[in-house]
Amino acid sequence: MILPEIKPLSERKEEILTQARILFSEEGYRSASMRNLAERLEIKAASLYSNFDNKEEMLWEIALRCAKAFFDKIEPICVQSLPPDQKLQALLEAHIEVIIENRDASTIFFEQWQHLGEAKRTQYAAFQHAYEQNFIAVLREGQAQGLFQQMNDRFISLSLLSASNWISRWYRPEGKMQVADIKRELIQLLMHGIRTR
Amino acid sequence: MILPEIKPLSERKEEILTQARILFSEEGYRSASMRNLAERLEIKAASLYSNFDNKEEMLWEIALRCAKAFFDKIEPICVQSLPPDQKLQALLEAHIEVIIENRDASTIFFEQWQHLGEAKRTQYAAFQHAYEQNFIAVLREGQAQGLFQQMNDRFISLSLLSASNWISRWYRPEGKMQVADIKRELIQLLMHGIRTR
Repeated sequence: MILPEIKPLSERKEEILTQARILFSEEGYRSASMRNLAERLEIKAASLYSNFDNKEEMLWEIALRCAKAFFDKIEPICVQSLPPDQKLQALLEAHIEVIIENRDASTIFFEQWQHLGEAKRTQYAAFQHAYEQNFIAVLREGQAQGLFQQMNDRFISLSLLSASNWISRWYRPEGKMQVADIKRELIQLLMHGIRTR
Repeated sequence: MILPEIKPLSERKEEILTQARILFSEEGYRSASMRNLAERLEIKAASLYSNFDNKEEMLWEIALRCAKAFFDKIEPICVQSLPPDQKLQALLEAHIEVIIENRDASTIFFEQWQHLGEAKRTQYAAFQHAYEQNFIAVLREGQAQGLFQQMNDRFISLSLLSASNWISRWYRPEGKMQVADIKRELIQLLMHGIRTR
């Protein structure tokens, strides 16, 4: 596991992070203010500062937890011994499930983390890279076995993830498409796209 | 053409919009301030206000021009008489070209327009819907002719566009992949994904 250990926080801190996550996702990290967050939580700004030094510390704690949600979901699949096409399909299903179950987290995992300061941003980019490597490894294995077309695997892995990530933008639980439909159709499109004939 | 006529602006106004587009794309619309914009242009905030009433008016003018870039590129293809698979491929190529040639514009066409006030936002959503309909129509035609798989065409069209839109996030002209490579690989993935065997 490439992620640092995530220490359990007090109930109070968890509650602050939950509201911060929603606020960052709704308003964007840069527009979100500590005053706004305090108002949402119905506490004074001073009590925020007694829990977290600043907005970036919150973003980091949230971003770590988001990354963990993605890694936790795919790790059991990565260690399974499966043919590469089945493994890739399972990885994509898992990825889509995390996105749908946790839309705020996806926005943070894919976009908002870029607002971290330089040192943390570099560290976070490494998590994303490691996550992506799991997809690339399976793509390569499938190409080696002649199951997948010969394509630039970094690019294809990014495209597969991107097509999935977009779901966090438009998926609404009350919408017409059910989670099962989304998974089935998108995975059909993507898997069909990379398989050899 | 569903878009309203776009009136030519004074050179001064064009210059302001160009800088505003870059600023909105870099900082996000909500974080961008008129003061910041004035500093970039090396003018006083008062001269900004003598050209545009407010930030929303700028966003609207920029968003209209972005929408126009996308429509202008696909319209000549839409009126051609081509087999649906060739037409869809040409549409996707055109879409990707606009994204790559004009990354700020893409961010605004896909994301920043959501910051418009309600009336304008509704109008803008209609442009996006109309744009998407061009892709859906070709998908349906291809399905009717047995060239494409039977899938939910709204969803697939959204997925095709999403996989392409993501390019605006990570494409860098100085990067390893050339425009031609990106177009070829992504279109291969997507077209392969929807074709029947």
